[in-house]
Amino acid sequence: MAIVGNSYDNKKKVKVAVIGATGYVGIEIVRILQNHPMVEITSVIGQSFVGQKISDVYPNLRGIFDMECISLDIESLPEKADVFINCLPHGISKEFIPLLLEKGKKIIDHGGDFRYKNVEVYEKWYKTKHELPELLKIAVYGLPELYREAIKDAVLVANPGCYPTCSILGLAPLLKNKLIQTDNIIIDAASGITGAGRKTDLQYSFCESTENFKAYGVATHRHTSEIEQELSLLAGKEIMVSFTPHLLPMKRGILATIYANLNSELTANKSSCKGADKATCNGVNCEIKEEAEITTSKLIELYRKFYKNDKFVRILDEGKLPETKNVAGSNFIDIGIVLDKRMNRVIVLSALDNLGKGAASQAIQCLNIMCGFPEETGLMTPGLYL
Amino acid sequence: MAIVGNSYDNKKKVKVAVIGATGYVGIEIVRILQNHPMVEITSVIGQSFVGQKISDVYPNLRGIFDMECISLDIESLPEKADVFINCLPHGISKEFIPLLLEKGKKIIDHGGDFRYKNVEVYEKWYKTKHELPELLKIAVYGLPELYREAIKDAVLVANPGCYPTCSILGLAPLLKNKLIQTDNIIIDAASGITGAGRKTDLQYSFCESTENFKAYGVATHRHTSEIEQELSLLAGKEIMVSFTPHLLPMKRGILATIYANLNSELTANKSSCKGADKATCNGVNCEIKEEAEITTSKLIELYRKFYKNDKFVRILDEGKLPETKNVAGSNFIDIGIVLDKRMNRVIVLSALDNLGKGAASQAIQCLNIMCGFPEETGLMTPGLYL
Amino acid sequence: MAIVGNSYDNKKKVKVAVIGATGYVGIEIVRILQNHPMVEITSVIGQSFVGQKISDVYPNLRGIFDMECISLDIESLPEKADVFINCLPHGISKEFIPLLLEKGKKIIDHGGDFRYKNVEVYEKWYKTKHELPELLKIAVYGLPELYREAIKDAVLVANPGCYPTCSILGLAPLLKNKLIQTDNIIIDAASGITGAGRKTDLQYSFCESTENFKAYGVATHRHTSEIEQELSLLAGKEIMVSFTPHLLPMKRGILATIYANLNSELTANKSSCKGADKATCNGVNCEIKEEAEITTSKLIELYRKFYKNDKFVRILDEGKLPETKNVAGSNFIDIGIVLDKRMNRVIVLSALDNLGKGAASQAIQCLNIMCGFPEETGLMTPGLYL
Amino acid sequence: MAIVGNSYDNKKKVKVAVIGATGYVGIEIVRILQNHPMVEITSVIGQSFVGQKISDVYPNLRGIFDMECISLDIESLPEKADVFINCLPHGISKEFIPLLLEKGKKIIDHGGDFRYKNVEVYEKWYKTKHELPELLKIAVYGLPELYREAIKDAVLVANPGCYPTCSILGLAPLLKNKLIQTDNIIIDAASGITGAGRKTDLQYSFCESTENFKAYGVATHRHTSEIEQELSLLAGKEIMVSFTPHLLPMKRGILATIYANLNSELTANKSSCKGADKATCNGVNCEIKEEAEITTSKLIELYRKFYKNDKFVRILDEGKLPETKNVAGSNFIDIGIVLDKRMNRVIVLSALDNLGKGAASQAIQCLNIMCGFPEETGLMTPGLYL
Repeated sequence: MAIVGNSYDNKKKVKVAVIGATGYVGIEIVRILQNHPMVEITSVIGQSFVGQKISDVYPNLRGIFDMECISLDIESLPEKADVFINCLPHGISKEFIPLLLEKGKKIIDHGGDFRYKNVEVYEKWYKTKHELPELLKIAVYGLPELYREAIKDAVLVANPGCYPTCSILGLAPLLKNKLIQTDNIIIDAASGITGAGRKTDLQYSFCESTENFKAYGVATHRHTSEIEQELSLLAGKEIMVSFTPHLLPMKRGILATIYANLNSELTANKSSCKGADKATCNGVNCEIKEEAEITTSKLIELYRKFYKNDKFVRILDEGKLPETKNVAGSNFIDIGIVLDKRMNRVIVLSALDNLGKGAASQAIQCLNIMCGFPEETGLMTPGLYL
Repeated sequence: MAIVGNSYDNKKKVKVAVIGATGYVGIEIVRILQNHPMVEITSVIGQSFVGQKISDVYPNLRGIFDMECISLDIESLPEKADVFINCLPHGISKEFIPLLLEKGKKIIDHGGDFRYKNVEVYEKWYKTKHELPELLKIAVYGLPELYREAIKDAVLVANPGCYPTCSILGLAPLLKNKLIQTDNIIIDAASGITGAGRKTDLQYSFCESTENFKAYGVATHRHTSEIEQELSLLAGKEIMVSFTPHLLPMKRGILATIYANLNSELTANKSSCKGADKATCNGVNCEIKEEAEITTSKLIELYRKFYKNDKFVRILDEGKLPETKNVAGSNFIDIGIVLDKRMNRVIVLSALDNLGKGAASQAIQCLNIMCGFPEETGLMTPGLYL
Repeated sequence: MAIVGNSYDNKKKVKVAVIGATGYVGIEIVRILQNHPMVEITSVIGQSFVGQKISDVYPNLRGIFDMECISLDIESLPEKADVFINCLPHGISKEFIPLLLEKGKKIIDHGGDFRYKNVEVYEKWYKTKHELPELLKIAVYGLPELYREAIKDAVLVANPGCYPTCSILGLAPLLKNKLIQTDNIIIDAASGITGAGRKTDLQYSFCESTENFKAYGVATHRHTSEIEQELSLLAGKEIMVSFTPHLLPMKRGILATIYANLNSELTANKSSCKGADKATCNGVNCEIKEEAEITTSKLIELYRKFYKNDKFVRILDEGKLPETKNVAGSNFIDIGIVLDKRMNRVIVLSALDNLGKGAASQAIQCLNIMCGFPEETGLMTPGLYL
Repeated sequence: MAIVGNSYDNKKKVKVAVIGATGYVGIEIVRILQNHPMVEITSVIGQSFVGQKISDVYPNLRGIFDMECISLDIESLPEKADVFINCLPHGISKEFIPLLLEKGKKIIDHGGDFRYKNVEVYEKWYKTKHELPELLKIAVYGLPELYREAIKDAVLVANPGCYPTCSILGLAPLLKNKLIQTDNIIIDAASGITGAGRKTDLQYSFCESTENFKAYGVATHRHTSEIEQELSLLAGKEIMVSFTPHLLPMKRGILATIYANLNSELTANKSSCKGADKATCNGVNCEIKEEAEITTSKLIELYRKFYKNDKFVRILDEGKLPETKNVAGSNFIDIGIVLDKRMNRVIVLSALDNLGKGAASQAIQCLNIMCGFPEETGLMTPGLYL
């Protein structure tokens, strides 16, 4: 076997099987992995296309990766690979995940099932019973920027949702540093349509979705609970947020616009100068204010420090804002920060590719960590921009 | 002259000149007015295309409306029409508006210049000196749902901005009824690219803007001040809001997602039951809570009552959310309301066409009111949807 | 009954029922007819949405046209209206069309069934048996520019296909005037995705069809036979053509690029000057050539003469080319003509809206003719352009 | 210097400078080369952005390739690299190309200037005087599938145009094998908007070009002459073609639909059976016909044989048609072939990425050949599909 603990035997590539390879996340994983120098894709499992070449389903792969899709045969599954990346929807994986673990295999799962610490939260938001609650204890939330060390030793990684990745990384430095109030956090986000998967619902047809914009799942989207879990851990207390997803007339990309009020300690300066004449106390001669004053550039510095070891998090210069086209097709997340002094509010804008850092390439980032490869192996491609 | 006071002499059509007719707002006005039963377009003024037919600039009009563009000759301008719709950007109109008023003409202006009560607010946000501050006293803010009576007698109507129309109409019932806290209102909005006008900036080129989403003008967009002015008037006190515009990869349509916390009186019930066991006091036996409890359906009822005379405001049924394609090409604004009980927060979603109810057709709605026509004349066309 | 022969009793509106009202063609008919001054829509029949308001299916119609969808009850169908517009696919209509005709009703049908003179051609290309071949004798091909007189008295109008309308009108003047060779006509056309109807096929989903272009049905598309039938009638002899449809990443619009070689008589001049020195015989002193020479402007003149009574056919000035955005949402067809002297070939470009002149609004044009209304009633709206 | 003849010293990377690096072709070259294992980009030259990081102009490159743009200083230019890829428009390169050649450098040029054998053809179609006609003798047309051997030794490679690459590769096997008539070849093609380069023309703005389709340059596009030159060389005689480009509402991709009549020798069989009863002679018992009959599958076989050494040309299976999304972002060209027996005509469909195989990646394919690298080095990435 190629993996011994985390040490990597560089004579052998890691064998990876992709389960649910013909969905949009699955095929993005295949697209990236077929070019990964340390990985050999040994199986692509896709129930709907058994016996067909994957390059018949996705002809962009013709001549590059023509492996035949096989069915999900649970009995023979474990021998197919060292690492299994599961892209089937939440709920289905209970059949084979315990078996794979038993056989000493490693798993990266894209379902919601193993992202939760508390099984009740999962069951409430997913409106279904969890079939493998005992695995929540060993599962690691696959967000390398927060859980890199745990991922190294993990055998079951729960790859985060796209919106949660965008939201959590956007807020982590503020919460960890206790800079913001936690009762008025609002995350307004929008996603490209690939986020819905390879579906034929009418609402995702070209004619119904182009030149259109709408919200969906207002106040009820499942990702809210995943976001809240991780933000609460960062803040050290229970947090609830408003999270509103929207559907963009485009394929790839998520932008989250996040609003949070600065902490009262930080804003106290103004009100503490109670007697002062506003005209004179505008920061020029006020030592207290000068010292404590938060600025956009200080916040940017804070973010850069927080993410100093995270190659895929790009904190933008002051005055620059993220755009989804800069991250589409890549594993990068771009974060821009604006301090609205008028409102004493921070506005964080974070952008990623819902299929990239929000799903497929993040899974491969985890794979690299789990296998002891340099974290960026196979992932240092820029987005297409065009 | 066709207009005597507000009474309409139906033997004569009103003569309308469109100044700046070849921009996107101007041509939308032309498109609607050429089919308006009570209007005769007498002049289309477009500096860049003098001597060309407007149907050479916009060939969709070939055979329908082929009038030649003329230049802006101020001296002869007043005799061209009874009503002038000005679509030139803010700042330029100072040359001819006083003259037109002097000659007894009526004006509907699309610039920001006359939308403000307080000239200092304008000058601060537009970073320019106001040249005609004395006209602010007679200008009426052209939002029929709030200022219908004043518009009837107005000689100078300042047509509202697209984002302000969407934001103000989305919040008016809540503020007027004092249902929400006013210090945490957040308006997160996104617009189609026609909102930028007929420009050749690289960022609005197809290749740079399709399959892309970004925010712009974060914490600094001029429309913030226009929104705040009107919300303050509705609330009866000074209000500041966070307003964040985004650019959508589509042509027409604005969706605003508006967040506001319910007022503490409304939410007091829960905390007033201090000693109560949470499990028993979940609304079933709690009379106080029962009485005061706000629900989504009560809010919808409230909105419908507030807009009961406003044909172009469509309050959606519970569970339905607005989509821009339903209003694109029309004068309608669709509003959906969601009460997030978990957060004690109202989320209002309002959608309109930035060129329609957000600009051109709203101007014609004002024109109808100013001329004494039925308000919906020429405007009862549904959006294209497709 | 409102219709007496073709004379129109203007006190009463014509009652129209739309069968298959919730498909894309059906709803476009509803959109246009609800604003038609001489029509009352009495029923909207849509099997999949019985009991729902049509404005729940297409919320752009909210507050404008909220009629409830009813099921297709054949027995009671005839009493619903004077004219029936059938938008169900070919093959289904056999159940009710004979009954409606028997009851003296008029029908405009969107299927392929009644477009053919020769039942065998239909059966070969549609690979199905024709159930009502006897009706082919009374059916009139609903292309007003060619069959206006016959449509006036028709009781069964077969509304032409979208590609055929675009192709036939593009070629009619050339064939009727015997200007082109008939063995090398090539029609290369592309359509927006609404042409496929309201379908949920994966290939029409946003993510699979945006930013993509492909041909389909190469050498086998059914519309080929419809085009060939009408071109043969125009030419007075059997014609076969190459017709290649393509799928565009947009909603509405067809552009046909049509290639035809000029007739040898017209080109003979050059070769007849056998002995002449090319340098001297370049048209300046060659009387024969001068006389016979075809130019783009002569062709344009010819087209304008041919279509002089056809308000919805716009022949563009020399040097201008049609664009789909100029006709989208309208009943216009724009035609541009280029003579390629180098190749002795005419290139005709014709553009229409596949849902407009290619389907829904053309049906209403026929309706107007059948009911004795001015042909343009309710149809003189320009496309949206934006 | 890294290049000695064509042998590659694998200890040293080849130094490459990109001139005009901030246009769409230039940046695509940068995007590919920054990941090329044998190339070191030593300079990115972009007049409009001197002193800025290229990743400020294209922020998708942030953290991946942040080199600063420098100005085009001709004197110091030669020392910047071993190979120069010039992406400036035709006509400008005369200042530095002779100098670079003199200094022993290799050049790949994207202008039209060096693509022609005959300077008069260039001057006629480009309507400008050629400044360096003597270089036409040493320039090699950079289409590896046809000129691989010449490219190996070339010092000046003229990278082909996007439409020509798509058209020539689509027709080469037919012409080389003399299967088609040469007087009725029609190439109907459509391109994504990146083909126009990084321009701010109004017609390329999002609002003017989305949801629109049009032809342009009908019968006059410059690429016609480039296509004709190469097709004539393949056919061994002068050929003229009709070439019509169209503008698609998308970013990347060209699809050419090519029509050509089969040669009369091939079709003679039918007519040679003059006396035969059509019913009996339908191919079953007709030996002559059997032998000579062309089928789609024979044509596919022929194409596959022709391109057997060309990894980037993918000949599709019978019944499959190319789609631009399968090649977008890649160096592949997909070709589908349909024999229309009814018309005795071949329809070839070829698709490539106008920025990829139609420009940037083809240049790198040439670079690989010129430097003795495996031809596919750095280029075996599939398109994005999504």
